[in-house]
Amino acid sequence: MISVAEARARILDGVPVLGAEVLAVTEAHGRVLAVPVVARLNQPPADVSAMDGYALRAADAAAGARLRLIGEAPAGQPFAGRINPGETVRLFTGSVVPEGADAILIQENAEAAGGEVAVREACSPGRHIRRAGQDFAVGDELLTAGRRLTARDIGLAAAANHPFVTVVRRPRVAILATGDEISLPGEPLGAGGIVSSNSHILAALVAAQGCVPLVLPIARDDARAIAEAADAARGADILVTTGGASIGAHDLVQAGLQSRGFALEFWKIAMRPGKPLIFGRIGGMPVLGLPGNPVSAYVCAVLFLGPLLARMAGAAAEVHEETARLGASLPANDQREDYVRATLTWGGDGWVAVPFARQDSAMLTVLARAQALVVRAPFAPAAEAGEIVRVVPLNAL
Amino acid sequence: MISVAEARARILDGVPVLGAEVLAVTEAHGRVLAVPVVARLNQPPADVSAMDGYALRAADAAAGARLRLIGEAPAGQPFAGRINPGETVRLFTGSVVPEGADAILIQENAEAAGGEVAVREACSPGRHIRRAGQDFAVGDELLTAGRRLTARDIGLAAAANHPFVTVVRRPRVAILATGDEISLPGEPLGAGGIVSSNSHILAALVAAQGCVPLVLPIARDDARAIAEAADAARGADILVTTGGASIGAHDLVQAGLQSRGFALEFWKIAMRPGKPLIFGRIGGMPVLGLPGNPVSAYVCAVLFLGPLLARMAGAAAEVHEETARLGASLPANDQREDYVRATLTWGGDGWVAVPFARQDSAMLTVLARAQALVVRAPFAPAAEAGEIVRVVPLNAL
Repeated sequence: MISVAEARARILDGVPVLGAEVLAVTEAHGRVLAVPVVARLNQPPADVSAMDGYALRAADAAAGARLRLIGEAPAGQPFAGRINPGETVRLFTGSVVPEGADAILIQENAEAAGGEVAVREACSPGRHIRRAGQDFAVGDELLTAGRRLTARDIGLAAAANHPFVTVVRRPRVAILATGDEISLPGEPLGAGGIVSSNSHILAALVAAQGCVPLVLPIARDDARAIAEAADAARGADILVTTGGASIGAHDLVQAGLQSRGFALEFWKIAMRPGKPLIFGRIGGMPVLGLPGNPVSAYVCAVLFLGPLLARMAGAAAEVHEETARLGASLPANDQREDYVRATLTWGGDGWVAVPFARQDSAMLTVLARAQALVVRAPFAPAAEAGEIVRVVPLNAL
Repeated sequence: MISVAEARARILDGVPVLGAEVLAVTEAHGRVLAVPVVARLNQPPADVSAMDGYALRAADAAAGARLRLIGEAPAGQPFAGRINPGETVRLFTGSVVPEGADAILIQENAEAAGGEVAVREACSPGRHIRRAGQDFAVGDELLTAGRRLTARDIGLAAAANHPFVTVVRRPRVAILATGDEISLPGEPLGAGGIVSSNSHILAALVAAQGCVPLVLPIARDDARAIAEAADAARGADILVTTGGASIGAHDLVQAGLQSRGFALEFWKIAMRPGKPLIFGRIGGMPVLGLPGNPVSAYVCAVLFLGPLLARMAGAAAEVHEETARLGASLPANDQREDYVRATLTWGGDGWVAVPFARQDSAMLTVLARAQALVVRAPFAPAAEAGEIVRVVPLNAL
């Protein structure tokens, strides 16, 4: 058995970032940039007013002065002339500051009547002017390659005049559930059969990471069926199998895949749940063989498939961890790294994790109610309530 | 000016949850359940083995005993007969426990040869048996109405034999950017013009909340154009407008919308950025008039549009807040609730928020780099580095 960290390192070893594709900026939320976004214009495009008011020469703007109103310039309609001494132009937020002006008198400090504007309060040079390029200037790198685009990034790329962005294409993940005993929901179910949940959990996880699931038909517990499913996965970037727990699952999955060139890298990880994970490759395609047990399959997917997808998608290949106060004690751990299902609530000044009493790895109800996995290192001593522990928050996953 | 809390309460007042729709369970990730998911079968369907091993009578399983191997029962293929004294059946994880057996001898503690199994270690009644319905039983409410479905929930609903789930339909949000000065990215840009970012940020925000954006063409600063855009928003659940800052935006937006029956609820909120927010209704459709400034529009969308969408979608209508340690001091606040753009990093035992020096509400670059909004109550005293403050994490938003 190898450690979780070693397993992850070996899974990620040599995995390349996928190629790029071009997307409309409006379609790119959550995607990872393959090429930096560089500003194609200045923002603001010129010196502009930060307020509704009057453009003038600060030297003219003594309290009590009266200036001649020579025009109005809405945003997007710059004033054609220039402001000479004693003159002013009505501006609005975002209006270009006319030539000759060096300050904005805000309208609250002005009184306009009869073609004149009375200055109520002096203003200094530069007042209420946003300088050209103050937000960004042509050539500025605004968003770096490898960044996962937020809604705000989308706006920034648009504002920098990018109708399109170049992002890493989404990894395609073929998902193959195996097992004579499983059926799809609503389909005929044999005696002692159970309804498949692994494919659906994994597909949702994959989609939640912005990747593309390809759910293959369930393969019977038969090496040939598994081999044929592997053929159906051609063109995918990753093949994930689950289970086949009925008659020596791993031998069967391995036997089936070996006929298609599967090369085993390792099998069995010192973790709980999820010990019997197999990892290898068919050609260059990573193959993750997850346990059939849904809780084990899920935890393995969070710990190994998630970082693998992130790596291929050009993002940081890590499992996001935080810390929490334990809300209940935990016994000493054995040699396997333990991922303990727990609730996670905000305790005012930090997270509080309360492990479920039942950690049975077949309990989907407990998994669904869990909000985090508490990480217990191998041979961790017993932990008392109140101690700080590492947690993997599950959120929408 | 009214407070942020009052504004939110008035925006949410009387807003109903939208109607339901039926979706394949595989399409329901992130959606809000309209009808609870109730188990349609027992899980496990019968008493099953939790391990690979041998079913037997615990009374027979003294160390050193030898039992007659009478068959094998993979998961999904229950053993047809019953186990009598001195007999055993080969089982696998998930196999139905045959009649007559009351314990599982794990294979590590068994030695099979010549049609017999030697018991190496005694086992007690019930050992390694998962009881029928231990995870869930027919009729159990597994997922409550109002729950936003995680990947695990999808798996649980599938396992409970639901090919379909009933969820709240997604709010449709018409988004109308107004302003003579703005153009879409890559389109011709006038002198002093700027490229539109608001629609794109808002559309991404709406989609990130699992709702459906409908981006209307930009409306010129003209009451009739705005009125016609309002017509185009018919059938949407919410209309969001932005800006038109060039010539008295709000009068214009209001004038345009009033010709279509707009009833103003309030205008101006004691907050920064985002003071000039208008809220009203056209018929039953809420209309949020956001400032034209992208930072203001964004912050208002997070604080007001987000909860409104959540309410309509059947989820909790709240802005998620956490707390963080301030990484730099902040001055005393005035009468407006302030939402200070800041970085947010995990400091080992909690979040650390470092406000940006520049809080100019026209700075999209600062907004894009921000990871949280630090909430400053009206008249909050100066805060020193190290103090605990409220933060709104922005994450993918």
